[in-house]
Amino acid sequence: MSQKVDSNPFRGMRDILPQDVERRERVIGRIAENFGRRGFHRIETPALERLEVLLGSEGGDNEKLIFKVLKRGEKQGDDSGVDALADAGLRYDLTVPLARYIAANHATLPMPFKAMQIGPVWRAERPQKGRFRQFIQCDVDVLGMEAPYAEIDVLLAAGSCLESIGLRNFTVRINHRAILTAMCQRVGVAPELHGKALISLDKLDKIGVDEVLAEIATLGADTARLRPLLEAVNAGDTSPASFVRDFELEIDPATVSELQTTIARVQELRTGSWKIAFDPTLVRGMGYYTGAVFEVAHPDFSFSLGGGGRYDNMVGRFLGRQVRACGFSVGFERLMLALTDADIYGGAAAERVAVLYDRAETAAAAYRAAEAARGEGAIATVLPSEKKLGRQIERLREGGWQRVQIVAEDGSVRTAA
Amino acid sequence: MSQKVDSNPFRGMRDILPQDVERRERVIGRIAENFGRRGFHRIETPALERLEVLLGSEGGDNEKLIFKVLKRGEKQGDDSGVDALADAGLRYDLTVPLARYIAANHATLPMPFKAMQIGPVWRAERPQKGRFRQFIQCDVDVLGMEAPYAEIDVLLAAGSCLESIGLRNFTVRINHRAILTAMCQRVGVAPELHGKALISLDKLDKIGVDEVLAEIATLGADTARLRPLLEAVNAGDTSPASFVRDFELEIDPATVSELQTTIARVQELRTGSWKIAFDPTLVRGMGYYTGAVFEVAHPDFSFSLGGGGRYDNMVGRFLGRQVRACGFSVGFERLMLALTDADIYGGAAAERVAVLYDRAETAAAAYRAAEAARGEGAIATVLPSEKKLGRQIERLREGGWQRVQIVAEDGSVRTAA
Repeated sequence: MSQKVDSNPFRGMRDILPQDVERRERVIGRIAENFGRRGFHRIETPALERLEVLLGSEGGDNEKLIFKVLKRGEKQGDDSGVDALADAGLRYDLTVPLARYIAANHATLPMPFKAMQIGPVWRAERPQKGRFRQFIQCDVDVLGMEAPYAEIDVLLAAGSCLESIGLRNFTVRINHRAILTAMCQRVGVAPELHGKALISLDKLDKIGVDEVLAEIATLGADTARLRPLLEAVNAGDTSPASFVRDFELEIDPATVSELQTTIARVQELRTGSWKIAFDPTLVRGMGYYTGAVFEVAHPDFSFSLGGGGRYDNMVGRFLGRQVRACGFSVGFERLMLALTDADIYGGAAAERVAVLYDRAETAAAAYRAAEAARGEGAIATVLPSEKKLGRQIERLREGGWQRVQIVAEDGSVRTAA
Repeated sequence: MSQKVDSNPFRGMRDILPQDVERRERVIGRIAENFGRRGFHRIETPALERLEVLLGSEGGDNEKLIFKVLKRGEKQGDDSGVDALADAGLRYDLTVPLARYIAANHATLPMPFKAMQIGPVWRAERPQKGRFRQFIQCDVDVLGMEAPYAEIDVLLAAGSCLESIGLRNFTVRINHRAILTAMCQRVGVAPELHGKALISLDKLDKIGVDEVLAEIATLGADTARLRPLLEAVNAGDTSPASFVRDFELEIDPATVSELQTTIARVQELRTGSWKIAFDPTLVRGMGYYTGAVFEVAHPDFSFSLGGGGRYDNMVGRFLGRQVRACGFSVGFERLMLALTDADIYGGAAAERVAVLYDRAETAAAAYRAAEAARGEGAIATVLPSEKKLGRQIERLREGGWQRVQIVAEDGSVRTAA
């Protein structure tokens, strides 16, 4: 034992302590229960995917963050280069694997299909405080269903799920890719520069109207036209129909109507303290979105607590024909920062009982006492007692074991005072 | 969409279909509930560990099966060889990461500490039917507790857990490393050949007494002495004390007494149809075991359904001082093959209700009907109706949606006949 091996976790990853696992599992259980009640079927894909699946999936910057796995049996000194030595990678999200899964299993899955996924994803981000290289995502997706039906279903599920785990007063912001495109056209950004303009627009919250205008001006936009659009957003409530009308956007009226309907139905059917609001500056980074996009904002947090949208072309990459898709990803790790223990635990927790015994001969009495406590709904542990019994009891109480029972030599059981 | 990307999962891995995820999650929930009730705290470690943690951990052949992960930012054409390009790997079990975790977090964890882990591990085995390269392990471990206290606790927890998820009539076989060593000595195998002798002994079930004797004879053993030992085992019930006495094994009497006590207490305290039996030929492959070893056998299955033992030296590799440890790993994937739906589901499942609507205007009626069904305990999904309504209803029923409700144009709801 002279040469110790470093006990820290791998760079950028974390060990999760018991009380945190308990909080996390409690929230995951609630999320799974909630989505399950609404008919979402839980599915699972492997952590590793072939690189050809992960690359070229329009995952934006995330594709650069893939942990690549060495091909097995590859020889040292192979001169074909590093990339040739890796043929798989850890999934960086749950959407790309879902698309592959739907294509691979389309013959056995019902259609439309409502999928739920809860599991870890990996991204080789530069390690920094509060950002980890392995984290949980919770996604729901509706496959094979048109707008606005899938959007309504997904948004009601997401909203009621967040509400059920204790989040209050959040807003689901919603927009549509077609509106973003029409805005770019309206202010004279060339089609090939739309992507760049959207990246600037996405920063409106952070850098404000003037900075966004300055950035988009460099792309050849008519900022005199753009300014009133952005100011309208900052001023608050607007509807897709009035926004499109006021700024003379060229856009299919059916798309506007779909978006109006989605907002109206969700507004009508949501229960609780949350609301839905149209936000024509909402972008979402991923290139794969084809229709509505959404994001959950909360007044107390600068980060979003989830988001999603419609991505009708992703399954086709694997299946060769289009399967409509619309999904929402709960920002699980951020949510865990936002929720308090009162949100998470609500009512009373089970009593925790520790039973102590000091010789193998009285094990029966100890285990029977523990089993009796469990029968009354408690969590009960059995431990050998220590010489310094008083200190042991104190430590157990500090550790959350509210009742401590002690087995005497004759097998009788007393509760510590 | 002309060039389709292959939709199969990565070689040796699998997509899990909804009904299987449901079965698996149900069993995992039961296992977690059961161990949790007994005071085991769930913990979590990252999927990736530094290679120095995974290698040299006495994990036997499993160390050869590590999926190695490429160092980030490494340049193509680096000539330092393949191994230098990987600095981490996917964990191949949950025991090595646990040992690192205990060392890393010993200042904040109570001691003794009862840990529960449920999560995936990865091994790059040659893909074959029924064997996957990613699979779930469920482990419980007691840290910082002496024999036989930890052994009794772990075995009672394992047995009651297996019983609670529907397994019946299984036997926990138990042995001790000291007995194996004494047997090797007794029949004249040189210390450096003990490992090889144990590999042969481990095959007794499969190849029988004569073959085992032939193999061990090549290691210089006195097979005339060994034969009655093996035949005693095959003849059934024997106790550690009588086995040690009958065959004049040189072994610390305290060790024999510990093992006797473990068996007697577990036999006395187990509830249900399972039993515990001493088996002096039980080996367990991993080099890290230092005391008792156990394995769960079932008459209907040729494979074991779990196993474990005491490994007092593993945490020390990271911490620099000894922390006693004893654990059990439930053979989750094999268990899923052994359990029937009746075992898994037991009582009645929730009713499944599908509500169909045909226009966005009646979404409110559909979602309210679904919410009402959920209020009565059902799982309820909302779907747009299809033109061929009769076929859709039929398909939904085949898919397990027992009640189908249809929203009419005026918002009224009827149940399909």
